[in-house]
Amino acid sequence: MRIDVLTLFPEMFDGVFHSSILGKAAEKEIVNLNAINFRRYAGNKHGQVDDTPYGGGGGMVLKPDPIFAAVEDILASDPNEISNQGEGAHPTRENSGEIVGSVKPPRVILMCPQGETFTQKKAEELSQEEHLVFICGHYEGYDERIREFLVTDELSIGDYVLTGGELPAMVVIDSVVRLLPGVLGNETSAVTDSFSTGLLEYPHYTRPAEFRGWKVPDILLSGHHANIDVWRREQALKRTWERRPELLDKLELSKQDRAYLDQLQREAGSS
Amino acid sequence: MRIDVLTLFPEMFDGVFHSSILGKAAEKEIVNLNAINFRRYAGNKHGQVDDTPYGGGGGMVLKPDPIFAAVEDILASDPNEISNQGEGAHPTRENSGEIVGSVKPPRVILMCPQGETFTQKKAEELSQEEHLVFICGHYEGYDERIREFLVTDELSIGDYVLTGGELPAMVVIDSVVRLLPGVLGNETSAVTDSFSTGLLEYPHYTRPAEFRGWKVPDILLSGHHANIDVWRREQALKRTWERRPELLDKLELSKQDRAYLDQLQREAGSS
Repeated sequence: MRIDVLTLFPEMFDGVFHSSILGKAAEKEIVNLNAINFRRYAGNKHGQVDDTPYGGGGGMVLKPDPIFAAVEDILASDPNEISNQGEGAHPTRENSGEIVGSVKPPRVILMCPQGETFTQKKAEELSQEEHLVFICGHYEGYDERIREFLVTDELSIGDYVLTGGELPAMVVIDSVVRLLPGVLGNETSAVTDSFSTGLLEYPHYTRPAEFRGWKVPDILLSGHHANIDVWRREQALKRTWERRPELLDKLELSKQDRAYLDQLQREAGSS
Repeated sequence: MRIDVLTLFPEMFDGVFHSSILGKAAEKEIVNLNAINFRRYAGNKHGQVDDTPYGGGGGMVLKPDPIFAAVEDILASDPNEISNQGEGAHPTRENSGEIVGSVKPPRVILMCPQGETFTQKKAEELSQEEHLVFICGHYEGYDERIREFLVTDELSIGDYVLTGGELPAMVVIDSVVRLLPGVLGNETSAVTDSFSTGLLEYPHYTRPAEFRGWKVPDILLSGHHANIDVWRREQALKRTWERRPELLDKLELSKQDRAYLDQLQREAGSS
C-alpha cells in the first residue's frame, strides 16, 4: 500500500512513521509512507497556500490550486494511475466514471471536523485500497472546491477540536496499516482479536500475584480453564454493561450471557 | 501546565512535541512536555515490563510495578505534590481523600479502548489542571491493578483499534494545550471559535473567484454582509442536518433556524 500525506508540517510525522508498527511495516515494504509539504505547490514566490475568506470573517482558508496540484502530481507518479488528461481528469466524486485505464483510483481523504466519524469498519474498508492520499489542514478552513471536486472521503476521528489534520491522519493510518497482511505478529494480533467480540475487554492480570496487598483474583490462579473462560466472559459483559451499554444492543448474545446481564440488572435494582 | 507521558516509544513524540502549536507552547513555557520511557523503572536486568497473563491466553500484560514506580517518581519530582508517604500514599481514586498538603493532585490518565469516549467537554475539563500524567500501553493489556489503584481517568478517542496509546495521548494533549491561555493567536482562535456554535462549519471560499470553471457563490462576492450571514447560517444548518442531524437535537435554535430546517425537510420529502 502507498500512503501520501499532504501537510504543512511534514516533520510532525517523523517519529510516528519511523517507530513501532508503522516503522516496521515500512521497513518490510508492506507500506510506503510519505509526508509531503504542499507548500512547494504554492505556485507563488512567497509560498502562500492560504488566503482570506470571500465574504469576510476571521481565519484563513486553504486555496484550491496548491492542493489540486499536489494531488495531481502524486497521481501522475503512481504507475497504477493514468496520467492527467487536462483539468478535472483526476479521479473525483464528480467524474470518476470517466476514468479509463486506472487500475484503482486512490482514495483522497480530507481530515476535517465535518467528516464522517471514523470507525473500525472504515479502517477495514480503507485497508483494501492500494493507495491513500490524506489532506491535512492546519488551523485554516478548506476552500469548498477541494471538498466538492477533489476528495473522495471526509473523515473526523471524534467530536473534539484539534490544531490540525495531522494527528487524525496518523490515527487513521495506524489503524489501517495494522490490518495489512504481514504487519502484526501473532503475539500482538492475539490481544487485539479480543476486540472482535464486540465487548470491552475483561480485566488482565500478570505477576506478581500480590502487589502491595492487592491480589490477583483466585480464579485466575486456579487452573480451571472452563471456569476462567466463564469468569472472563462475565467480566467483559459486566464492563461493557457498566461503561458502554449501547454496544450490547449490536451483539448476538447467548442465553447464558442474557441470564448474567439480567442478574446484574437485578442486583443494581436492589442495591 | 506540566504533562508527562509514560511510554515504551518516547521517540514517537519527537516530531509532535516540537512542531506547530505544541512546540510553540513549550517554547513559551506555557506547557512542559515530557515523554518518559517507563522501561527504566522495570527493576530487572532485562528491562522486562510485561509478562504473560494469569489464567492463560495470548498476548502480554503490562506489569503493575514499573508503572506505579514511574508515576510515583513523577509525583515526587513535582514541587506541588507532597512526597510519597509509603506505599499507596500517591493520589488515587481509592485514597485521594487522605492526601494532605497537595495543591492539586495530578490526573493520571490511562489511554485504553475501554475508557470513556473523549470529547471537547473533557478537553476543557483537563485544561483546568496543573499536571497531567498519561500512561500509554502498546499492544499489551494493562494489569487491572493499574486501572483500579493508580489512574484517575480512562480515555478512549474513538471506536477503532490502534497499535498503542501514544497517538491517542497526542490527540488529547493537542486538544487540551490549544485551550491554554496564550497558546492560540487571534488568527487561529477565530476559526476554531466557529465550533462553539454546535453546528458543522459553513463552506469556505478564497481566491481565485473562479478555479477550473468552478465559481465561488455570487453571494460571497456581493458585499451584503447581512445576506452573507444568513447564507452562512443556513449552510451550517444544512450541512449539520445532512451529516450529523443528532447534533441539532442538542442546540437551541431560533425561529428562523427552525423555518429553514422545515423547508429542507419539505424539499427532501417532495424530491
